[in-house]
Amino acid sequence: MTEILRGNLVHTPEFGKLETIPHGYIVLEDGVVEGIFPVLPERYAACPAVDYKDCLIMQSFADLHLHAPQYPMLGMGMDLPLLDWLDTYTFQTEARFSDLDYARQVYRQLAEDLISSGTTRVAMFSSRHADATLILMEELERAGAAGYVGKVNMDRNSGAAQEAAGTSIPETLRWLEGCRFAHVKPILTPRFTPSCSDGLLEELGKLALERGLPVQSHLSESPGEISWVKELCPDCGQYWETYRKHGLWKKGTLMAHCVYSDEKEQEAMREAGVWAVHCAASNVNLCSGTAPVREMLERGVRVALGSDIAGGDQLAMNRVITASIRASKVRQMETGDPFLSVPEAYYLGTAAGHGYFDGSSGFQEGKKLHAVVVDDSTFPPAARELRLEERFERAVYLMEKQHIRAVYSEGRLAPFCRLR
Amino acid sequence: MTEILRGNLVHTPEFGKLETIPHGYIVLEDGVVEGIFPVLPERYAACPAVDYKDCLIMQSFADLHLHAPQYPMLGMGMDLPLLDWLDTYTFQTEARFSDLDYARQVYRQLAEDLISSGTTRVAMFSSRHADATLILMEELERAGAAGYVGKVNMDRNSGAAQEAAGTSIPETLRWLEGCRFAHVKPILTPRFTPSCSDGLLEELGKLALERGLPVQSHLSESPGEISWVKELCPDCGQYWETYRKHGLWKKGTLMAHCVYSDEKEQEAMREAGVWAVHCAASNVNLCSGTAPVREMLERGVRVALGSDIAGGDQLAMNRVITASIRASKVRQMETGDPFLSVPEAYYLGTAAGHGYFDGSSGFQEGKKLHAVVVDDSTFPPAARELRLEERFERAVYLMEKQHIRAVYSEGRLAPFCRLR
Repeated sequence: MTEILRGNLVHTPEFGKLETIPHGYIVLEDGVVEGIFPVLPERYAACPAVDYKDCLIMQSFADLHLHAPQYPMLGMGMDLPLLDWLDTYTFQTEARFSDLDYARQVYRQLAEDLISSGTTRVAMFSSRHADATLILMEELERAGAAGYVGKVNMDRNSGAAQEAAGTSIPETLRWLEGCRFAHVKPILTPRFTPSCSDGLLEELGKLALERGLPVQSHLSESPGEISWVKELCPDCGQYWETYRKHGLWKKGTLMAHCVYSDEKEQEAMREAGVWAVHCAASNVNLCSGTAPVREMLERGVRVALGSDIAGGDQLAMNRVITASIRASKVRQMETGDPFLSVPEAYYLGTAAGHGYFDGSSGFQEGKKLHAVVVDDSTFPPAARELRLEERFERAVYLMEKQHIRAVYSEGRLAPFCRLR
Repeated sequence: MTEILRGNLVHTPEFGKLETIPHGYIVLEDGVVEGIFPVLPERYAACPAVDYKDCLIMQSFADLHLHAPQYPMLGMGMDLPLLDWLDTYTFQTEARFSDLDYARQVYRQLAEDLISSGTTRVAMFSSRHADATLILMEELERAGAAGYVGKVNMDRNSGAAQEAAGTSIPETLRWLEGCRFAHVKPILTPRFTPSCSDGLLEELGKLALERGLPVQSHLSESPGEISWVKELCPDCGQYWETYRKHGLWKKGTLMAHCVYSDEKEQEAMREAGVWAVHCAASNVNLCSGTAPVREMLERGVRVALGSDIAGGDQLAMNRVITASIRASKVRQMETGDPFLSVPEAYYLGTAAGHGYFDGSSGFQEGKKLHAVVVDDSTFPPAARELRLEERFERAVYLMEKQHIRAVYSEGRLAPFCRLR
């Protein structure tokens, strides 16, 4: 089926490049972008069209690091030091997800909150619970979101959230059995080295290889964590080697944070094709630091953004994008590294993340559409006619749910849009 | 008239102290707090009551530094260096306010945006225009907000926004003539030393003395500005002395930013009773730096918060509060100064600002009520029953307009609440 969307098109086909097409057209064939046009070619004249008039049609967001079971504690415990925060809030909250009714309630609200905020793709941590993880995937699928979800593996040092000895791999296999969703796929998710025994990492590495499964984890978030890893794994020179040792350091592996990744660790990422997921809001909230994003990008490391709820306090990715800009400005004041411009940070929070999943670069022919339609007509009255670039910038800073007219995920209008 | 409000009361009667009264009562007599009770005294049993049930009744916000005519450029031009940003956006936008229809449109939306975000008191910069400033005051009054508004004085170095020679004082007098509002009062507002000639500052100092008017301006926002002031005023040892010299450095003077105020400047503030208005979001957006808030507070300098739109990109003061927390965490990482806790930052963005106007400390007997009623029932489902302190924290981080059930300003329910 051919479908045509009309509106002011804004996307970032590459890092630092903003492309705008005033009153342009996106032609979809079964949800796949067939072309992008400033003027509609004659051959489509008879096709059904949705006219978003003066709205902006922008790339939707991709959130490549967040903890679904921490959604209940969003915005809480931010004054506590990291380890107290983990004990008092995180592990206790995550333990609640053995209750499947509770899981259903939380994950339904989370999925709706995500998609109505314009986030259409995710790479998400669940808890240790296989069944609750399947519920999470089902709710994401139902809401129209896409991406990866991982049952978390953690068999040591994890308090109330820890798995009973010998259950981590069998439960992982049982979870993988249940993963039969069209758009939400499994990703192996060792929480991080301190919470996984060598044996567990070894098994997960084998599983990743045998089944061709992607991997996500945490890396070099704080100095304390890095020292801890050094103690736990005296045979590994650097943190990243604890993952490589077990076959988890490979093309497409997502590593959250990388605040303290030095030149050597960054080179190891670039060489292996491991991605850094930058979580600016969380890194400031937890006093972790400001990540070397510009440096990683210049070195050729692939970078995407994550809300990292509930270390991050905001689910809406446009706020994560502006938090990344602010963190980069702090970093500029500290190190001189140029800050991220609005188009650059927007690229990282949208196109980069989508590219992780499908290799796309912005709105691209042959790729399913992931887009958000923004009505900026109720923004403060401008002093003159604004260029599309300026309207884009305001949208990134000011967009709230009520400004989002429509969301397209995997080429389809998200269900919540049809209900309105 | 006696009126009773029931709900979960949360306020900060002093810096760092959070007081919570579950299902408590506020008794108002003509909008003035007569008492706060955990259990309603028998004598009030027959009075009309509004039961906000399980909602939080919290102190409303006070925004002690923002530029009303920059509202149209909220979230724009953030990638530009300060001086380009001023030239390309600020001065051109401000110049538009000679058009009174435009002023009416912008200021009506701003006033409604403010009050519906829970901000009930402001200290605000207008533009140079006397008539537009009166419109701004009228619109704030109509929306139910209170506080100070200043016609800006600027007779040098100010591009398109500058006043014609010899017109600044006569226009100020004409503006003062027109100031006849119940809750919105005038404040003298030399923009900052670089944009005011010595003669102008001299005249404003006299006016402040003769009429007992308060004063607001900018101080030590960035190193470049400080050098510029040194060049312009070689006879003054420090920036603050350029205000003292002309009688503008006095009890209750509001100085925005103070990012680079050293020990001596801070001592001068404390001695004179000059307030620092901390604008964390703006200071990061413009790469100015992180202000020494903890240091100022420990030295006894009074501090309140400002959104500083449009250097700041968010009008909602709960976001300015969390931005202040994040800035203080960055500062902690830099200097070791302990970060601002949620109750501390909330105090600065609410009680401190209200105290500036009426000497109150939180909800206090004998003071008009300034409060916001927050319905947190649609926040993410918590993993267990939350303490009121935790619900308060979530409200500060997650509150959006749609969670605000009611706003009280100067003891009255804000008009927008009656319309809903």
